[in-house]
Amino acid sequence: MTNSLTEIAANKSFDGWHKRYKHYSNCLNCEMIFAVYLPPQAEIQKVPALWWLSGLTCTDENFMQKAGAQRIAAELGIAIICPDTSPRGLDLPGEHDSYDFGSGAGFYLNATRDPWKNHYRMFDYLTRELPDLVQANLPLNGREAISGHSMGGHGALVLALRQPDRYTSVSAFSPITNPGNCPWGEKAFTGYLGTDRNLWAQYDACKLVASRQSQQELFIDQGEADNFKNDQLKPEQLQSICNEVGHPLIYRSHPGYDHSYFFIASFIEDHLRYHAKYLFADS
Amino acid sequence: MTNSLTEIAANKSFDGWHKRYKHYSNCLNCEMIFAVYLPPQAEIQKVPALWWLSGLTCTDENFMQKAGAQRIAAELGIAIICPDTSPRGLDLPGEHDSYDFGSGAGFYLNATRDPWKNHYRMFDYLTRELPDLVQANLPLNGREAISGHSMGGHGALVLALRQPDRYTSVSAFSPITNPGNCPWGEKAFTGYLGTDRNLWAQYDACKLVASRQSQQELFIDQGEADNFKNDQLKPEQLQSICNEVGHPLIYRSHPGYDHSYFFIASFIEDHLRYHAKYLFADS
Repeated sequence: MTNSLTEIAANKSFDGWHKRYKHYSNCLNCEMIFAVYLPPQAEIQKVPALWWLSGLTCTDENFMQKAGAQRIAAELGIAIICPDTSPRGLDLPGEHDSYDFGSGAGFYLNATRDPWKNHYRMFDYLTRELPDLVQANLPLNGREAISGHSMGGHGALVLALRQPDRYTSVSAFSPITNPGNCPWGEKAFTGYLGTDRNLWAQYDACKLVASRQSQQELFIDQGEADNFKNDQLKPEQLQSICNEVGHPLIYRSHPGYDHSYFFIASFIEDHLRYHAKYLFADS
Repeated sequence: MTNSLTEIAANKSFDGWHKRYKHYSNCLNCEMIFAVYLPPQAEIQKVPALWWLSGLTCTDENFMQKAGAQRIAAELGIAIICPDTSPRGLDLPGEHDSYDFGSGAGFYLNATRDPWKNHYRMFDYLTRELPDLVQANLPLNGREAISGHSMGGHGALVLALRQPDRYTSVSAFSPITNPGNCPWGEKAFTGYLGTDRNLWAQYDACKLVASRQSQQELFIDQGEADNFKNDQLKPEQLQSICNEVGHPLIYRSHPGYDHSYFFIASFIEDHLRYHAKYLFADS
């Protein structure tokens, strides 16, 4: 058990710092890398943090390089933490064979099947180990919000819905809203969790909303020209369930926008300002 | 000879469009790809354009994905054109052996040596063929500014200094200011141009400033923590020559910033607003 971070990169950005750290994860049983943007305010005081969970095939780098979020985070005084999307450095059978399962596709769950269950525990990693680690080592004040894209939008919704009092606010871009009912999710859940659909429901935003564990508002942006919208993301399913059970939802549909980071970059400012409202509210 | 563009990608971005086109270049004798950001204003009127020339190893994609320029371009109504950094799809002897010569490293010149001279003519491509092509096919009003990074900063300075009345304004991030006097430039110039230093001088910003062909102001941003600053970029050389001959130069030195796109993203807004002042001035 070690509780230390090794800094592997530091780039000044909008008067703050983009940093990458590696550390050994006891939860995932492998070495992991994550990135943090520390706004200039973090030099003199502890700041709140936004967790950003990325989508299939991503690492800690995609959001930091492509979303253009640092400008607004620097203005607002919010740290951004980008974890990786799966355990790394392993070579489990079939782990690297497809873009939507195994490496780069951890789906933010705790696997229960062999050989995944000893490593693919991203839910525990992101709800316990990594938060403890960054809290102990970085100038964070303990207030947390969460957001993500696609598979990471799924992750953000699931982590927030299952921990109703943890995050001040939750948002998502183009999330997989109903993974138990789409090809990406069915493949991942079958592989990591087996066929027990009660287990699947713990990682399915639609099922979690229906279970009424949380009443926290969800803020979602979705592009109408997103190729994955109808088959994989199914925003109408989530809208329908939220409507049915009265779960607060801000859902914005954007004509012409696709699934890419060009879409995220266009609206990330709105998300950061949304989270700032809650991160800086009197608690 | 064909004068047509084939659209290969389109992503909505800040209410405008990021598009990638391929076309056959008669000048380079190969198929080329470039990217354009068209701001929302281009739907109803012709707009001015900023040329962006990228650095070693880049393609048309790096700036578009990492600089965060679209937000400001959309606000100001400026198109951005990102060409590739060398001819592509060839397989000349040694072309792909190193990151700083051959593919990805065209150095924005017209090669005179075999086997490069039949293809590596980026100076002609960017001063004649590609401008004609975009002017004929895209909603551009003919007013042009130019900027770039590193090798592309060198390109922007050289293209502007050699065509004094062409661009309304010129800027650069971390440019190679004196390629005839640094390892990257010496390698490239020797390979593409041979050993005639009179030929080298035509592609060397310091030599061009000294020749007093242009009196156009140069706007340069440089990071002080840039690993390439002292050996390859040599901003002091350019400052010294500009000072000596009275060439107008705005030179900003930024403590802590490195050579990466995190630096470019931090200050691209200043460059776009600088160019807008001239692109929209009464001509």
